[in-house]
This record gives sequence, C-alpha cells and structure tokens, in this order.
Amino acid sequence: MCRWLAYLGSSIALEDVLVRPNHSLIDQSLRARQLFLPGDPLASMFLDNAFPTNGDGFGMAWEGRAGTLGQYRQIGPAWDSLNLQHLAAQIESPCFLAHVRAALGSTIAEQNSHPFVHGGWMFQHNGQVPNFSEVKRELTFDVDPELYPFILGNADTEVCFYLALTYGLVQDPVAGMTRMVERVERARREHQIAVPFRATMCASDGTQLVVLRWVSPDVQDASAPTLYHSSGPTMLHTVDGDAVTLPDDAQLVVSEPLELHWSRHVWDEVPAGSIGVFQPGQSPTFAPVDIDSHR
Amino acid sequence: MCRWLAYLGSSIALEDVLVRPNHSLIDQSLRARQLFLPGDPLASMFLDNAFPTNGDGFGMAWEGRAGTLGQYRQIGPAWDSLNLQHLAAQIESPCFLAHVRAALGSTIAEQNSHPFVHGGWMFQHNGQVPNFSEVKRELTFDVDPELYPFILGNADTEVCFYLALTYGLVQDPVAGMTRMVERVERARREHQIAVPFRATMCASDGTQLVVLRWVSPDVQDASAPTLYHSSGPTMLHTVDGDAVTLPDDAQLVVSEPLELHWSRHVWDEVPAGSIGVFQPGQSPTFAPVDIDSHR
Amino acid sequence: MCRWLAYLGSSIALEDVLVRPNHSLIDQSLRARQLFLPGDPLASMFLDNAFPTNGDGFGMAWEGRAGTLGQYRQIGPAWDSLNLQHLAAQIESPCFLAHVRAALGSTIAEQNSHPFVHGGWMFQHNGQVPNFSEVKRELTFDVDPELYPFILGNADTEVCFYLALTYGLVQDPVAGMTRMVERVERARREHQIAVPFRATMCASDGTQLVVLRWVSPDVQDASAPTLYHSSGPTMLHTVDGDAVTLPDDAQLVVSEPLELHWSRHVWDEVPAGSIGVFQPGQSPTFAPVDIDSHR
Amino acid sequence: MCRWLAYLGSSIALEDVLVRPNHSLIDQSLRARQLFLPGDPLASMFLDNAFPTNGDGFGMAWEGRAGTLGQYRQIGPAWDSLNLQHLAAQIESPCFLAHVRAALGSTIAEQNSHPFVHGGWMFQHNGQVPNFSEVKRELTFDVDPELYPFILGNADTEVCFYLALTYGLVQDPVAGMTRMVERVERARREHQIAVPFRATMCASDGTQLVVLRWVSPDVQDASAPTLYHSSGPTMLHTVDGDAVTLPDDAQLVVSEPLELHWSRHVWDEVPAGSIGVFQPGQSPTFAPVDIDSHR
Repeated sequence: MCRWLAYLGSSIALEDVLVRPNHSLIDQSLRARQLFLPGDPLASMFLDNAFPTNGDGFGMAWEGRAGTLGQYRQIGPAWDSLNLQHLAAQIESPCFLAHVRAALGSTIAEQNSHPFVHGGWMFQHNGQVPNFSEVKRELTFDVDPELYPFILGNADTEVCFYLALTYGLVQDPVAGMTRMVERVERARREHQIAVPFRATMCASDGTQLVVLRWVSPDVQDASAPTLYHSSGPTMLHTVDGDAVTLPDDAQLVVSEPLELHWSRHVWDEVPAGSIGVFQPGQSPTFAPVDIDSHR
Repeated sequence: MCRWLAYLGSSIALEDVLVRPNHSLIDQSLRARQLFLPGDPLASMFLDNAFPTNGDGFGMAWEGRAGTLGQYRQIGPAWDSLNLQHLAAQIESPCFLAHVRAALGSTIAEQNSHPFVHGGWMFQHNGQVPNFSEVKRELTFDVDPELYPFILGNADTEVCFYLALTYGLVQDPVAGMTRMVERVERARREHQIAVPFRATMCASDGTQLVVLRWVSPDVQDASAPTLYHSSGPTMLHTVDGDAVTLPDDAQLVVSEPLELHWSRHVWDEVPAGSIGVFQPGQSPTFAPVDIDSHR
Repeated sequence: MCRWLAYLGSSIALEDVLVRPNHSLIDQSLRARQLFLPGDPLASMFLDNAFPTNGDGFGMAWEGRAGTLGQYRQIGPAWDSLNLQHLAAQIESPCFLAHVRAALGSTIAEQNSHPFVHGGWMFQHNGQVPNFSEVKRELTFDVDPELYPFILGNADTEVCFYLALTYGLVQDPVAGMTRMVERVERARREHQIAVPFRATMCASDGTQLVVLRWVSPDVQDASAPTLYHSSGPTMLHTVDGDAVTLPDDAQLVVSEPLELHWSRHVWDEVPAGSIGVFQPGQSPTFAPVDIDSHR
Repeated sequence: MCRWLAYLGSSIALEDVLVRPNHSLIDQSLRARQLFLPGDPLASMFLDNAFPTNGDGFGMAWEGRAGTLGQYRQIGPAWDSLNLQHLAAQIESPCFLAHVRAALGSTIAEQNSHPFVHGGWMFQHNGQVPNFSEVKRELTFDVDPELYPFILGNADTEVCFYLALTYGLVQDPVAGMTRMVERVERARREHQIAVPFRATMCASDGTQLVVLRWVSPDVQDASAPTLYHSSGPTMLHTVDGDAVTLPDDAQLVVSEPLELHWSRHVWDEVPAGSIGVFQPGQSPTFAPVDIDSHR
C-alpha cells in the first residue's frame, strides 16, 4: 500500500506538488490520512483506521529531454531526503509520476520502488495482488519472453506492468490495462482467493495519463483504494499558508488530496471500477473496466 | 524522538525482546503508542497525539565476547530488516541496548544512529536538546579535546554522550550524567531557550544500566518522555499469543511496554527527574538528578 | 565475479579469517590479486590483468544458535564497514561462508548479495552464467514451483542455488550440484553460447562444505576461476606481522590465499572440473564433476 | 583521495562528460589511472602505483533553475548507479561539478560526499589534510560560528570549505582559498606534521571555476595530485568510438583526462602551487598561491 500522484499540463517544477503543498506527497510519506486497510486488525491503532507511514522507498519518473523519460528511485524514506528536495526543485516537466511506498512485508529494494519505466512508459501502483506468492509464478510466466529479462524486482506491481505491456499497453493502453486486470482476476478465481484485488494504477507515456481504480467486484462491501483528480483551476496551500498556483491546464491524479483542508469543488473521486484517460487540454474520460469475467 | 530498550540479566537472545513480543521494539518502529509530542501541531493527526513512526535508523549494542562491546547500526527502518531479525536471533547477551530512531528533521545517517559506543560504554537517548543548532558549538567545544575526534555524527545525542564521558561517566556514571544535564540546562538558560530539555537516556558498561528520565524543571506543565522498567518475573506475549518467559533476574527499561495490553504490576514508571541504577540481581535504585541550577 | 571463503573446524571468531589476515577477505574487496577476467579488454588496465575491486556488496552466513543458520548481507562495500568489523569480532562459528561481490553490470541489491540461505543450506558463487538474460527464463522455469516464491533477487547465482535445491541438494549435495551444472551447460549448448560457464561455488548445511570448481569443458584453453584450500596447520599473518593461529582441525576454502606472501605448502588448488567435500576431522575428497553432456 | 571534474561553458547534458567518454568520471570510479599515492606501501599492488577504486560515494552540483544550485549525492559507488545515469541524461547545465570518492579510512556517508554546497557556492576536493584528527578541532573552531551549524559531515573537505567561506570565499574567491591553505599549513607547522598537504580543489558559484592545485612546499620531492584542464575545441571519444563534441566555449578541469588515449594538445596540466580562475569565454588565468608562510 502506498500513495502516489500524477501530473499532466504545462511544465512545472516537480516540487510544486511533491514538496510545497501542506499535504504534499512528501507529507503523505509520514502522515497519510486515507490509506485505509479494510479488515486489517492493526488498522485500529491509527487515527481513522488509516495507516500513516509510507517509508519503504520513493520514486519519480518524468517526461524529460528529447522525448526520453527520466527516472529516480531510492530505498530510503521520502520525508527527509535532501536529494529528493533538491531534484524536485530543479527538474521541470509537463508530465510526471511520483510514489511513496509502504511495502507491508514485501522486499524493500530500489528495484521494487515505483514508478517502473520500460519501453517509453512509466507505471505506478497502490494496492496489492492478494496471495501474490501463490500466483506469482504463473503470472510471471505469462509475461512476453522478450520482456521477461527486464523484470528486476520481486513485487507484484512490476509483474502487473509487464503483463500490461505484454497485453498491448503501448498500442492500446485501456485494453492493456483491462486485460491485465482480467488476468489477475482469473488467477484469483482459479486459486479461490477470497481477498479482493484492490488497486489504483497509473500508466503514462509522457503525453497522457491512464489511471485505474479497482476492487474485485465479487467481494461484497469491498472498497477500492481512494483516488482523486483535480477539476478546474488548482491553487494549493503550503504549510506557511502561501499559495501554489498551478497552470490553468494542470491535471492531477492523487491517492489523496495534496491539502490538509480540501474541498470537493477541487478534488473529485475517480469512479471505482473505471479507467480514466487524461489528455492535454481536454476533460478526462472515464469508462468502466470491461473485463470478461469468464476469461 | 525515538523508542529504546535496555536489558540486564541472564543471557538471552536479543530477539526475545527486540522481535518476539507483540509490541516489541520492532513493532514500535511503526506503531509506537506513547511518543507524545507536547505542543507539536502535527500531533493531532495521530491517535492519542502519539507519533507512531520511528523509521530513521536502528541500532543495538551489547556486552559481547571477552568483555568487548558489540555494535550494529543501520540507516534503514527496523520494521522490515532481515539483517536485524537474523542478528537478533543469533546474538545472545546478558546486557544490551537497542534503539529505533525518529530523526524529526535532523540528519539520517549511520553515524547518528544509537546506541553510540566509546571507551567501553554504550549510550542511547530519546528526546531532544532544544534549539540544538544554537548551542551545538559551545557544547561541542566543552568535550575533552582527546575525545573530540571520536565524534562522527552531527546530532545532539552524541554530543551529550561525549559530554558525559568528559564529565567522568566512566569513573562515576551518576555524576557524569548529572553534570551533562547541568551543562545542557546552563546552555538553555544562557540562550534563554523556553522549550524544555526532555530526555530519557541510558548508559551502560555492560555490567549495569544507568538511566535518566528528565524534563527541564523550569517549564511549567512540561512532561518528561515516558520511561518504564519491569518489576518482578516477566512474561511477554507474542502476536500469536505465545509466551516469552524471561529469566528470573531479567531487568528491562523501555520507552513503552513491550506488550499491547500491559499491566502496572509488570511495568513501573521510572520517576521523572531521576537517575536509576540497575545492577545484576538487585533492585534498582532511583535518585533525583542533583543539578546545581546556578552552575 | 567475486571473492569468497568458507571455513569448517572448531569454532572461531569470524574476524580471524575475514578481517585480521593481511590479505583477508576484506582486503580482497579492494585489492584482489587473482580475479582474472580472460578475454576482457579492460583486464589490461590492472596489474597481472586481475580485477582488484569487489565493492558491490558483502555477506556472510554461519552455523549459529541451536542448529539454525545466521545470515548478514549488505549492499555497501566491505572495506570500510564498521558493522562488518563489529559483527565479525563478536560472532563465533564452527562453519561459515563469506563473500565480497563484483556485480559487473548486474544489479547491486541486498537480495543479490551472497551467501543465499534456504532450507538449512547456505550457498555462494564466484563466476557467471554466460548470457544469463537469454537463458534466465527457462532456468527459472525449471525451479520447483514450491521453491519459486523464495527467489527474491534477479541474478544468476540465486537461480543456480534453487536449481541445485530442486535437483536434490539437501538429499545428495554432490548430485544436486552436478545436475545444476548439467542444466546450465545444456542451456549453453541449446542456445549455442560460446562463452564458457566459469564458476566456483560453495554449498553448506553447517556441518560440511561442498565446493565446485568449474569451467565448460568444450571451450579450449578456458580456465576455471581460482580456488584454493588449506592443508595442514594454518597460521596466517596480520598486516602488523602478528600471527593468527587457526585450530588444528581448521579447513579453509578460498578464492585466493588470505596472505600476501603464501606458500604452496599451505594452500593447494582445488582441481578444476571437480567437486570437493570437506567433513569435520577428515581430509577433503575431490571427484570429477560427472555431468552427462547429452542431457 | 578521489577524482573530480568541473565544467563551464554553454549548457550541456551532464552525461556528456560524466558518462559517455571512454574514461568518463564514472569510468574513473572503477579504473582511475593517475590516483598516485606517494609513500603508500599498498600502491605497489596496482598498475603504475595508481589506486584504481573510487567507490565511496558520488556527487554532483550544478547551476540550475533561476540561479539556484542543484545538488545530488549518494553513498553508493558511481559505477553501477542507474539513478546517476538517468539524472546525468536529464539534467543540463552551463556550470557543474562532479566527484567520485575514495574515503581511505574516513567515514562513508552522504554527508561526507562532495560537492558540498552552501551560500551559493559549490566545493569539491581530492587529497587529504594530513593527520586530520589531530588538527580537526582547532580548524573547526576557526570556522565562523554563524557557519558552524551547517557542517554536517566529519571529513576534512567540509572543514576546508567552511574555512574558505569564513575567510571570504564569496567576496574574493582567490583570497578565501589562499587563506584556507595558509591556515591548514599553519596547523601542519604547529603540529610538526611532516606529511605534506596535497590537494586539488574546485569552488564555483555557478558562473566561474576557481581551482587549486597544491602540495606543501616544505616537503622535498612531494608531488601535487594531478590536475588538467582542456585547451581549445574538445572532442571526446566514447567506448564505442563515437565522438562527443563539446561546445566551442567549453572549459573542463579534471583530475585526469576523460579519455583513455589523450593528447597534450587537448589537456594541459594546471601548474602545481597555483590557483586558476576560469570565466566564461575567456582564457583561464593561473597565479601562484600567495600564502604567508609565517602566518
């Protein structure tokens, strides 16, 4: 479980959303407010049953020089990283992803930090493939053998990314994401895994954002992890009360709003069970994830 | 601010208190319950106003082979460290200290991780010298010039340790600790620092524990950080409900009890404003810290 | 390519061979003398064409408390690690493995550091499966599905270890190692890989050492990586000229001798193409690796 | 001892000198050729008595957005860092410093990695203040108390930087550097330290490079560490034989040439005992370091 954000719009310094807002992604690394863990007995130990700590790695990827993607990942927590602060102050981009990780028992390693980058695409995730060790082998062997050697970590997200690539993410992002979800759900069904697959994901080629908000439909009362996007002009507030005004065409997708006191005029929920597509200068479109539940 | 524990008694594997209890020090790295931050506006974001995360390093030091002290420190969080689990399962000792760190803005570095070890003594701390950057230079230059080159980090605890060594910790531990507190309080007074010095500290030469629980007496309503010690036979519970029975002569000092559901029959508070001395096979003794407030 | 050592005999502190000798494993992390890289154009930049630097991680595993195996691995170089020095001074064992890594392009990660430990066995390696990314998928596929989820890194050694476990390492160590070599050679043959498989490996259950020294027999003039074992009473010299006298029953296997000036009376080469078995209190036995080259 | 480079000219991607040349700074992290250690008995173990390994950290600092300085430092070796390669490919600057570190016994820590940045200046160093632990306290005492709290590491370079700042680096860079050298030489004299102070240093405010090449003049036959600068149009070669053509106004200062096969038409030595100043679009000027050897 993790927190992430994605940005699309006129070029800004990454720090404007990563560092400066009073509930920036960095702040969420230590004080997340909506990282709910339904059914987890430990959740009751935290305010609002939300797990506050995302200290198992940080990463960012961005549309960079000459159409290439930049990438930076680290094992250490985001909250006190001077490197992160310096880089976020220096790097500007019109399209970027950033992620703070809560590994919750899986391996902490740079190779497991998000965002992942391959073939001109960036990818990040909040959530978990349930019983992953049970289904990992078969999911991994469904990855295109040409792509297989590029898997460097051992966690579920990277396998989901390479499955989406195998299923055509580059050619048709919505189809690639949909078939990946379908494949994970089939594994759950075949292994009779009762725990739902809960996930928010973001894939991007540096010109658009493709986001997913998902929870297995067969589990009653299961809730999808939170996911919001900004609507209309966005002004954020810093800890000191200053304003951070984003460009008029800025579009943000976030695990939770970047402000401590936020309004539903600015932040809309991404509909659960849907894939959203964000293109420059257009309103986002959302469509239900069209999985064939018998496949 | 941090969490720590200290053990004295018949030799046990470190994991018996570091890893196995249901609110072990490892558990406290992610889910501390009594790390209160009085006056901190952020505290309200957490259950019971207690900061849960101690993810800025881990360390342990122990009475080892042939009367030498062992030491292990790392930058990464304790909660998912396989090295830590393996070492705690293999190392046995009759006297050890262990610490999880919350740096709260100061530098995360192995050199700043506790426990510190020098001259046959181990030392660890929870709390903060207030306005440290303002008084750091003068405190540091009071350290014995022979000891000065051994300071490797940049944080307040190490300076407190070397001051205590300068003031005779090895010859008379209670006097060394007392004069160190006196010196920090003088710096507060001379710099007119209103924020109290709040600290729990533990020094040990491997045969005894010398612990301090302190809050500046001039600040009304200021509370000392929590500190407990075990009384009588100690049986701890694991997450699975199993019992961890400690030796009859076991003495523990902890920032907070190692159990989720604990009783005041087992855990006593260390009196605030006192120094406690724990010797093998004896009841601990506590005495008020006898600082000369005009020095 | 890497350097390693393995010890079997009466219990000693790990530092006696890891740290104290004048060409200890720690010294070999910065100044290896026999890490020859045949055919590598860069080799000519180094004295004797030997690559001196093994700075991509360190690890050790040992027979520990109550028949369990201890393990410690780190990403950082061995040469300046205080943790390593402290642990090697405190931990005693009658059987241990230790390794310094030169990743040469593959991923530096704690999960890729040797020794690997699983199912009561420790395992370490110097060398490389040639064209590993080309054959990785099929080799990994051959690992027992029950064992597959325990693979955490992405490098060749771990796959070799899990293949050996799949092929019966626990039941018959020599057979397990042999079939693993056979499987790698089959992959070379089927993929028409001309570069030889060069490897020294050590597997141990804490009571014996099983070592392999190998080079693909079909490549003319190819040399196996160096591997030595000690013969008879062993006295090593420190940088200061002091003596480190090992127990009478000590048996050592090393990538290169632990002394700068060594004699062939003390250090014998392990025969290339053979598997050696070291048991407590007995002379080692060596037998040719009996692979079926048509399998 | 370390290797570094500094660039001034029209903006380029950092990778053009950090990564792409066949003896780039990254290459020098593993295969330095001119890191001579006069008088060191270990030097004979390496080709040409030159220490090849600079694996104790990496860093870069650059003139960035809106006149601010960017900074990135890491503990891990440069040779295999994907972060380093990604960042060097994405960041462009008209003025930057970069450094690979060989700690040689001093602490490996991000806080000790070069370049240091403070008050609008960047600073890096190759060499050592001899017997530093002996003179550290008094040198540190001489740092302006206002600057003192910004010292975060424990190594000689940072103290030299803060001394230079104390002595007016910002107002008069040559004077600031000169007085710093003078101060270190006075400490050597007063402590009767026979080992020479050998150093190459570079300070920059993002608009100019101020470089020092120094060896204590009182030690006969002592040699200054190597330092070169490029003269005239500079074309570098990659490992694959491709050309990297730098802008016409490019000026480089390097510990050793960035090419395996280099010519004295391209690379000139910086005169030993001098300070050089590089300004945009001008030829560099060199002047003897004018220390008052009685001060």
